Amino acid sequence: MYSEVVKRMLETAGIFPGDRLRLTSGKRKFEGILMPRPDSGDPNVLIIKLDNGYNIGLKLSLDSKLEKIEDKEGHSKTIKNENVSQPAKKFNPNLNKVDLIYTGGTIGSKVDYATGGVYMLTKPEELLDSVPEIAGIANLRLNNLMSIASEDMSYLEWQKIAKAVADSLNDGAKGVVITHGTDTMHYTSAALSFMLKDLRGPVVIVGSQRSSDRGSSDAFMNIVAGTRVAAESDIAEVSICMHATTSDRYCNVIRGTKVRKMHTSRRDAFQPINSRPIASVSYEGKITYMGDYSKVVGNDEKTKLMTGFEPKVALIKVHPNSDPGILEYYSGKGYKGVIIEGTGLGHAPVSTPYPGFNWLGHIESAVDSGMIVGMTSQCINGRVNDKVYRNLRLIKKAGGLFCEDMIPEVAYVKLGWLLGNYKKDEAETLLSQNIAGEISRKSEADWFGE
Amino acid sequence: MYSEVVKRMLETAGIFPGDRLRLTSGKRKFEGILMPRPDSGDPNVLIIKLDNGYNIGLKLSLDSKLEKIEDKEGHSKTIKNENVSQPAKKFNPNLNKVDLIYTGGTIGSKVDYATGGVYMLTKPEELLDSVPEIAGIANLRLNNLMSIASEDMSYLEWQKIAKAVADSLNDGAKGVVITHGTDTMHYTSAALSFMLKDLRGPVVIVGSQRSSDRGSSDAFMNIVAGTRVAAESDIAEVSICMHATTSDRYCNVIRGTKVRKMHTSRRDAFQPINSRPIASVSYEGKITYMGDYSKVVGNDEKTKLMTGFEPKVALIKVHPNSDPGILEYYSGKGYKGVIIEGTGLGHAPVSTPYPGFNWLGHIESAVDSGMIVGMTSQCINGRVNDKVYRNLRLIKKAGGLFCEDMIPEVAYVKLGWLLGNYKKDEAETLLSQNIAGEISRKSEADWFGE
Repeated sequence: MYSEVVKRMLETAGIFPGDRLRLTSGKRKFEGILMPRPDSGDPNVLIIKLDNGYNIGLKLSLDSKLEKIEDKEGHSKTIKNENVSQPAKKFNPNLNKVDLIYTGGTIGSKVDYATGGVYMLTKPEELLDSVPEIAGIANLRLNNLMSIASEDMSYLEWQKIAKAVADSLNDGAKGVVITHGTDTMHYTSAALSFMLKDLRGPVVIVGSQRSSDRGSSDAFMNIVAGTRVAAESDIAEVSICMHATTSDRYCNVIRGTKVRKMHTSRRDAFQPINSRPIASVSYEGKITYMGDYSKVVGNDEKTKLMTGFEPKVALIKVHPNSDPGILEYYSGKGYKGVIIEGTGLGHAPVSTPYPGFNWLGHIESAVDSGMIVGMTSQCINGRVNDKVYRNLRLIKKAGGLFCEDMIPEVAYVKLGWLLGNYKKDEAETLLSQNIAGEISRKSEADWFGE
Repeated sequence: MYSEVVKRMLETAGIFPGDRLRLTSGKRKFEGILMPRPDSGDPNVLIIKLDNGYNIGLKLSLDSKLEKIEDKEGHSKTIKNENVSQPAKKFNPNLNKVDLIYTGGTIGSKVDYATGGVYMLTKPEELLDSVPEIAGIANLRLNNLMSIASEDMSYLEWQKIAKAVADSLNDGAKGVVITHGTDTMHYTSAALSFMLKDLRGPVVIVGSQRSSDRGSSDAFMNIVAGTRVAAESDIAEVSICMHATTSDRYCNVIRGTKVRKMHTSRRDAFQPINSRPIASVSYEGKITYMGDYSKVVGNDEKTKLMTGFEPKVALIKVHPNSDPGILEYYSGKGYKGVIIEGTGLGHAPVSTPYPGFNWLGHIESAVDSGMIVGMTSQCINGRVNDKVYRNLRLIKKAGGLFCEDMIPEVAYVKLGWLLGNYKKDEAETLLSQNIAGEISRKSEADWFGE
């Protein structure tokens, strides 16, 4: 709710949600469309959609001046005549059905202007109120599945989301959009890539690096682009759709097993690793396909689930002076597998003369005790190789399995999934075989940024 | 030694090291200068320096044709009149003294054409024989310090190298070049950055991603560029000098605390993180300065050492389903500190409802037990922040120290170094303060690739 003063200011100026206004605060001027008021938050903040498509939260002060400058019929209609908590209710027979699965994260949060902290929205509907444009792209149904920060997610959430996606696709949705926190978005995209089989339509994960009431928020463009991919593309894969650059020119659609968060705060944090993006989506909504992908097959096949997951798998990193005894710690706790982030081509210290730092015997013991040990590289980009150097061949001989050009985090998710669904010897064989686009052919793997 | 057949072929054609030759093998033709023969390796391989500056190893067969096409006086002289095991012996009073410290790694290795594997050179002099150009850049002294693959290095090697560098600089060298394996080169560069104080000259680490007898080897350009920086620049910092792109246009000189190996095999694997390179060095040898750096001060101050290091520090990574009990494992083993690679802005799962995955109490216990817990981000690029989200504030309250825009590996090296040289409370304070360029001002930290 607005404060009494702000309510009075809006009434005096005759401004309603959907109207175009000009706000003057000292020397700063903003023009844009007044968006509906969220239920909670600073009562002196207006949310305004600027002409560049972004929503911005502006705090009014006593000397702020508000003017209604134009009543844009189109905008007013979209919002004024709707129940504020549910946009685009009317079914448009010319548009595809898309389900939006809400899981939480920054994209569903806003700044508390008093503390500077960021809080989850109480109602995901508030988020959709901010992007009335999607009413023109798809018939959207909202599934308010959970509200959790992605750093707190576990495989139990992955399983829930996978089931919700399969239900949506098998219940007539052309595609699915999942809003998700960015911290572990690439772990979830990998998990869904393995857990969902025979996808009937695109599954697109979107999020934002800046909360949706910040001027620089990437939430709106990512949601709009993701919805477009879900509604209009034939990409039968799990993908992440986020800003491709720091500007708002376009989003990348990146395969769920070939993507990684590569920056703590930038809007273009999600980058393809060892592969090209599947497609890009321009600000204007044009989808440009850039690489091979699995296409939607128009038959009656249902999307299936394979959601087993073995949580007793660890992702660990070797480094100079690192303690190989950690392998015994995990095998003692009953762990079934471990992915090692080696150095370079998949190395661990195995020829050092200092026994306390030598991993060779420990890898051998872990394998002998029944654990699967996968080797990846902390370089992130590129491919591991068990042949080039003697140390690599020693690790192979000890039983380490080299994971080709898999991202370490993806290899971790894959191994947990394999051990949750297959027998150990099958899991060993499948680890280095491509299942969901996680391993590229050698020729593709040289792609390294732009 | 060459095989009898190859010896005969060279004699028949009248070709000696330093001569220009043409080799025809079927449809393939190569022209270049014959380099001296290494002591070991395939006896049927010639090492030829191509006109693009690269050395290439070519295996002769019975139908190979060898022709001497030109006796380039300059080249012949450089090599023919020298003892093969020690190039450029004559002191040139117009050039600066540079010491080359040899530690091993791919740059000091060659392919065994029989097995395809790569082996260390028995004599580092063989490497220098391949780059006669450095005789025109500096008066080089070779310090054959050790021969170790960098994945096997520990802090004990870092201490040895640091001491050798200080000895060189205090013994009249204008600068120092260190040849090093690439796997942990960035760990070593960080360690030396902290261990060496009051640098009297540039300390440049070079290596190669392809062994020096491969056609595509980056060894020669990296050594030449690194020697140029050591001999001619005033950069009083530890840096890594490696290919900036996949082509041979230029090398980057990157601060030792702001660099990371970002590809398993590409020649431009070493990329600056959260900073610009200090300088670039073109193929022709032009040094272009790109950012601020500490300059050499021409006084009598000696380079000092501060080589204490506490090996009981771990670098661990949180991920969905990760086991927070690992902190008790390390504290039980007497560990003094741990750097956590969190997600996003420095998160760990601290609000998950599943106790087995919740790190909060474990971080608190680790801190209470006397361990230092530093928070970094597995995004690698960007800065951690303890304020934006509630979960971050919880970690801070539990005693986690947020490591600004430090690369996780650098934070690990720094914490080990701090605990090896300072009291615990000093180490805590210094962890988030800049000491050797490892923490950037906020404005600089947004640099993310090119």
